[in-house]
Amino acid sequence: MKHPKLYYCPGHMSFASHVILTEIGKPFEAITVSVKDGATQSPEFKRINPKGKIPVLDTGSEILTESAAILYYLALTNPECRLVPDSAMGVSRAIEWTNWLSTILAGPVGQHVRPERFTNEEHARPGVKEKGTENLLIAYAEINDRLAGQEWALGDCYSIVDPTLLIFFKWGNQLKLDMSQFGHWCEHAKRMERRPAVQAALAAENISIW
Amino acid sequence: MKHPKLYYCPGHMSFASHVILTEIGKPFEAITVSVKDGATQSPEFKRINPKGKIPVLDTGSEILTESAAILYYLALTNPECRLVPDSAMGVSRAIEWTNWLSTILAGPVGQHVRPERFTNEEHARPGVKEKGTENLLIAYAEINDRLAGQEWALGDCYSIVDPTLLIFFKWGNQLKLDMSQFGHWCEHAKRMERRPAVQAALAAENISIW
Repeated sequence: MKHPKLYYCPGHMSFASHVILTEIGKPFEAITVSVKDGATQSPEFKRINPKGKIPVLDTGSEILTESAAILYYLALTNPECRLVPDSAMGVSRAIEWTNWLSTILAGPVGQHVRPERFTNEEHARPGVKEKGTENLLIAYAEINDRLAGQEWALGDCYSIVDPTLLIFFKWGNQLKLDMSQFGHWCEHAKRMERRPAVQAALAAENISIW
Repeated sequence: MKHPKLYYCPGHMSFASHVILTEIGKPFEAITVSVKDGATQSPEFKRINPKGKIPVLDTGSEILTESAAILYYLALTNPECRLVPDSAMGVSRAIEWTNWLSTILAGPVGQHVRPERFTNEEHARPGVKEKGTENLLIAYAEINDRLAGQEWALGDCYSIVDPTLLIFFKWGNQLKLDMSQFGHWCEHAKRMERRPAVQAALAAENISIW
């Protein structure tokens, strides 16, 4: 059987899949595709994912895209790792989180990092960026509220949601938001940092969450 | 046992949940919350969903948000309706679709319909809207490509993805995109319109997809 291949870019959304593959502990191949250098928009990469986005998982027989789908697939095919709860509501809560986080990436984070994707008018981009920050702070406060009194995003059960939250936490620091105002989330990030798989994925991508 | 309650707004993303509840055929209560009138931003509604968004499903014991999560929950708790495939890859493909569609709503559709959410500068809004259309046409072409030769989004299996696609099709017409260029998607929409549950949900919301 061929090892799964993860196409990823350091410090991007693909980090969550990188952590989860590491948690699972089976062999996999991690292939870097740079977003900044335009490699995700190259004809070669678009043959793999026409959407030109990472992460992409090549399972050996199929190509799967979208972070939420890849994470869920990895959880379902490695049930012994218990990476999602086994109740219908528990699993749906995981999807609720990952779907919501994807929309925050598509909207506010995207506005901040790539305002040119939201307007062709150069002079309008600072305003798009600024509004992105405004919306991001509202979403981040809501995330922090939801983490109150919880060890992990889904309560007692560590899941595919947690590494997804960690990359959003990193982006908050990267975008110079004052993340110390989100106390529950800071505690969550510190708990995450104590996990060997998280440490290994951070080292492999050569990034820090702070 | 209490009937589930769906909080929805006619012609919005909640339409997909409305169709799926109708397909399932068990009693449910549908409660209108107007986005345009600001009801989703009211303190009353924000007590139900702090994110101020529809759809919301009140299962009788828990509140679930995010269209993708609600749809998946309804599929999982009504397995006899076969609304998602039963393989890990099949289910992950459903999540791949719904997650991607959510990001298209959060980005391009949102830019078009609510440019004020992307910039506080009034003069910059037409540019944000225009770029939304540009990105939307790229995404819609990719959706159309993926529907080539398929009866439903996931192939032979009708699923929670199909009514989600239908509301995006409606939005295309509503935003005056030339949807006739997306032939595979037009055929899909027509197939959808022949389903009694789709007809019932369209009638209940008093909307047309054309």
